[in-house]
Amino acid sequence: MSDAPVKSGRRARGGGGAARRAERTAVSVETAKYIERNVPNYEVLTEEALEVIEANAETVLAEIGVNFVENPEALARWKEAGADIDGERVRIPRGLARKLCATAPSEFTQHARNPERNVVIGGKNLVLAPVYGPPFVRDAEGGRRYATMADFEKFVKLAYMSKWLHHSGGTVCEPTDVPVNKRHLDMLLAHMIYSDKPFMGAVTEPSRAQDSVDMCEILFGKEFVQDNTVMTSLININSPLTFDNVMMGALEVFAKNNQASIISPFIVGGAMAPVSVAGTLTQVLAEVMAGVAYSQLIRPGAPVIFGAFVTSIDMNSGAPTFGTPEASHITYGAGQLARRMGLPYRSAGSFCGSKLPDAQAAYETANSLQMGLLAGVNFMLHSCGWLEGGLVASFEKFVMDADQLGTLHHFAKGVDISENAQAMDAIEEVGPGGHYLGCAHTQANFKSAFWRSDLFDYKPFETWAEEGERDTQALATVRVKRMLDTYQQPALDPEIEAQLRAYVAEKKASMPDAFT
Amino acid sequence: MSDAPVKSGRRARGGGGAARRAERTAVSVETAKYIERNVPNYEVLTEEALEVIEANAETVLAEIGVNFVENPEALARWKEAGADIDGERVRIPRGLARKLCATAPSEFTQHARNPERNVVIGGKNLVLAPVYGPPFVRDAEGGRRYATMADFEKFVKLAYMSKWLHHSGGTVCEPTDVPVNKRHLDMLLAHMIYSDKPFMGAVTEPSRAQDSVDMCEILFGKEFVQDNTVMTSLININSPLTFDNVMMGALEVFAKNNQASIISPFIVGGAMAPVSVAGTLTQVLAEVMAGVAYSQLIRPGAPVIFGAFVTSIDMNSGAPTFGTPEASHITYGAGQLARRMGLPYRSAGSFCGSKLPDAQAAYETANSLQMGLLAGVNFMLHSCGWLEGGLVASFEKFVMDADQLGTLHHFAKGVDISENAQAMDAIEEVGPGGHYLGCAHTQANFKSAFWRSDLFDYKPFETWAEEGERDTQALATVRVKRMLDTYQQPALDPEIEAQLRAYVAEKKASMPDAFT
Repeated sequence: MSDAPVKSGRRARGGGGAARRAERTAVSVETAKYIERNVPNYEVLTEEALEVIEANAETVLAEIGVNFVENPEALARWKEAGADIDGERVRIPRGLARKLCATAPSEFTQHARNPERNVVIGGKNLVLAPVYGPPFVRDAEGGRRYATMADFEKFVKLAYMSKWLHHSGGTVCEPTDVPVNKRHLDMLLAHMIYSDKPFMGAVTEPSRAQDSVDMCEILFGKEFVQDNTVMTSLININSPLTFDNVMMGALEVFAKNNQASIISPFIVGGAMAPVSVAGTLTQVLAEVMAGVAYSQLIRPGAPVIFGAFVTSIDMNSGAPTFGTPEASHITYGAGQLARRMGLPYRSAGSFCGSKLPDAQAAYETANSLQMGLLAGVNFMLHSCGWLEGGLVASFEKFVMDADQLGTLHHFAKGVDISENAQAMDAIEEVGPGGHYLGCAHTQANFKSAFWRSDLFDYKPFETWAEEGERDTQALATVRVKRMLDTYQQPALDPEIEAQLRAYVAEKKASMPDAFT
Repeated sequence: MSDAPVKSGRRARGGGGAARRAERTAVSVETAKYIERNVPNYEVLTEEALEVIEANAETVLAEIGVNFVENPEALARWKEAGADIDGERVRIPRGLARKLCATAPSEFTQHARNPERNVVIGGKNLVLAPVYGPPFVRDAEGGRRYATMADFEKFVKLAYMSKWLHHSGGTVCEPTDVPVNKRHLDMLLAHMIYSDKPFMGAVTEPSRAQDSVDMCEILFGKEFVQDNTVMTSLININSPLTFDNVMMGALEVFAKNNQASIISPFIVGGAMAPVSVAGTLTQVLAEVMAGVAYSQLIRPGAPVIFGAFVTSIDMNSGAPTFGTPEASHITYGAGQLARRMGLPYRSAGSFCGSKLPDAQAAYETANSLQMGLLAGVNFMLHSCGWLEGGLVASFEKFVMDADQLGTLHHFAKGVDISENAQAMDAIEEVGPGGHYLGCAHTQANFKSAFWRSDLFDYKPFETWAEEGERDTQALATVRVKRMLDTYQQPALDPEIEAQLRAYVAEKKASMPDAFT
């Protein structure tokens, strides 16, 4: 069995526009290693501010408390751990949650079926995963429409072929043509078959989380799954301060099986949290501490991630807004809080509110991506493809964002200060009024010196005009088609694939379709 | 004489699409104070890296030296200061340049004719000025074309009306329909009459710099100009390591008259400087030290700014590239070097290589703007309107970028940690499972809580679709028209205006047209 990356080289050069187009849009299947930051984090909160927020979060947990809804076993676990239970309300004495969180690992490895694609989540690392959850898709040709399983498979293929993406993600779009109670099976199968990158499990029912574990046992082997983390799944907190039984049920399944969960408040500021940055950070910290502590009650040492999905709100329309300065404050601040807890941190993404992959989308997205890098994010969900506040997965924006992720990789390398990089010989060789293009230092270093986009237009104006004055979306349309046309499935043991397909078929046959 | 800002309120509400459109695009003439950062700078270079670069820059000045071209007086000044002169080559002994730079002020006030628009350049401040230099303009209706004086006046008006712009800039586009030897007169007149914000002087000939000073003496009074800085002008260094007599001649005029200059290497990495970040920073520092030191030889204490215009290069096409990680490294690093010299710092801008105000333009621009804020830039030229590598001033991109500059203002405020911002009462009032929209804290704080764009689309999908599925450029086209339609000239003493017009007419009549 060979899971080595398939490199499809550039096509042969030839005359004519078609050949030039082919050459320009050629893609090679190559995946960069996850980002290991060699640059500092940006910290917006002072020590004093951090201490105030941490003290307030303890007050929230001890005096206001959190609700664990329709989950008597959770209440019993909390009681045994020393919390005060009042109906479904759990009040956690000062210091208890933080103490329980201490058994969670500060970093962990998520294994992929191709070991070269394993990712280490935590520390100075940044792992990039695609958009999660949109019920709609959009492309230039077909416009906006409900997502289908065919769309889902295309996004898995694009993620597999995207050099700067380390992770296949989870619900890259909602396949609305498959019954709700069965679609997780098709989604998992697609991630397992069409990609060899790590992926996420199902969280919409505890039984679906269990299906995810079962299918992973087929793919990786039963023993391997019990000893290793092979899924990182998204457990949203029902902010403010509410942990519903569906999400907690999924968390319980994953934690018991040593699989990772992102414990993530889902907050539109001013609606699910206070309208202020400090207030929102307080609530986020309280919620994450309660959720992470609960995961450790299930299984001490279970891998978890400090999550923060936070957007601001437009008080004129009530719409969530993205790429805003307040969202940046919260993202930077939550990173500081996560590091003080010694937990991996999930935040940021290719966030935007725009309906189209236009300038608004790109301003908002670039603000969000850059902040994610500098905030010390360890796992970035939604790092490409997000459109219209997350309602839409855009094919064009997927490849546009995926290309931009290269800037994060290159920035994170930091500044080389070696003798070669100091370039004193070059400055002397060229001298006042000279030109560096031909000098020995440039010749030796130019290939790796500067990041370049594989998508953007760098042509002279006249060439660009002759070729139809295409904007970024038009270039992205070409790139999406080219990638899907040249996609090749990574090899997988046919026996394993057959077992996975049998599992899915059997499960589907065992229950009637349900669309809720 | 009243120069108070004219506030044009929102239009009355009324039925019908036209009224709604009018309301949506209404603009009020209001200018935010320059940014005073209450957030830390981002520093990418270690102390060790900074020391290596500083030592190497001294070596460059002492051993390689810089050329002062066709400027015997400059060579004489340098000789007297202790430099070693060999033809036009000036070798500056270690420590001498830095010592000379010490008399330059760490911050200075640039006065505007409306004192409310004065800006303080240096320290924790950030002053934003529009694009400088494009020979072409573009808008959706007229496409790309040579810029004219009519275009120039429109950009001055847009800058005057843009809330987040503090500065009117200089050559917002090249008015190619006016002879080269006369256009500086029309440009200065436009800044002085159509705006009350601070502006830049002419640098294309020493005599034109002198015209700038003369016109300022009419506008501000002769004595005021000698005692105060009323212009900040752009002196580019002819990188590598060359100071031409035209730019130095203009610098000499400005420094003698206590007017500010930005001493700015103009570098496409790999062409005018080494292909490495550390090498480029070394050359930038050497060039700025030589230029600033020279300004202080002209007049100790003359206000100057440490400039760095640096882009990367696409080695496939030779095109300069923008918003790239290497440009960020250099911008962050140069900020550190400038602060260690105690000089105000100019860098960043709305940089992009795209031909259109599309997604590429916005990704690249957002990367550049955010980096400018976090790099500690004090004066940001090109902060709006830049397109196609600076060849084009775009009307739509001007208002798109100008809107985005609001994110810099709001981010720079930092995180409020007051009792109100902590919002503990709100968290208690709302409790688990509640909603913050109606709570007392939200009602009291929502108006100022979150930045909102005045341009972007935040509407529900259905409304947006009904209104024609407009992208950001289309919204910007409407905004440009609306702003120019509602522009009102800031009041100016008619006597002063008449004197300025007479000066321009007389100067123009005194020489034949020249187009070089």
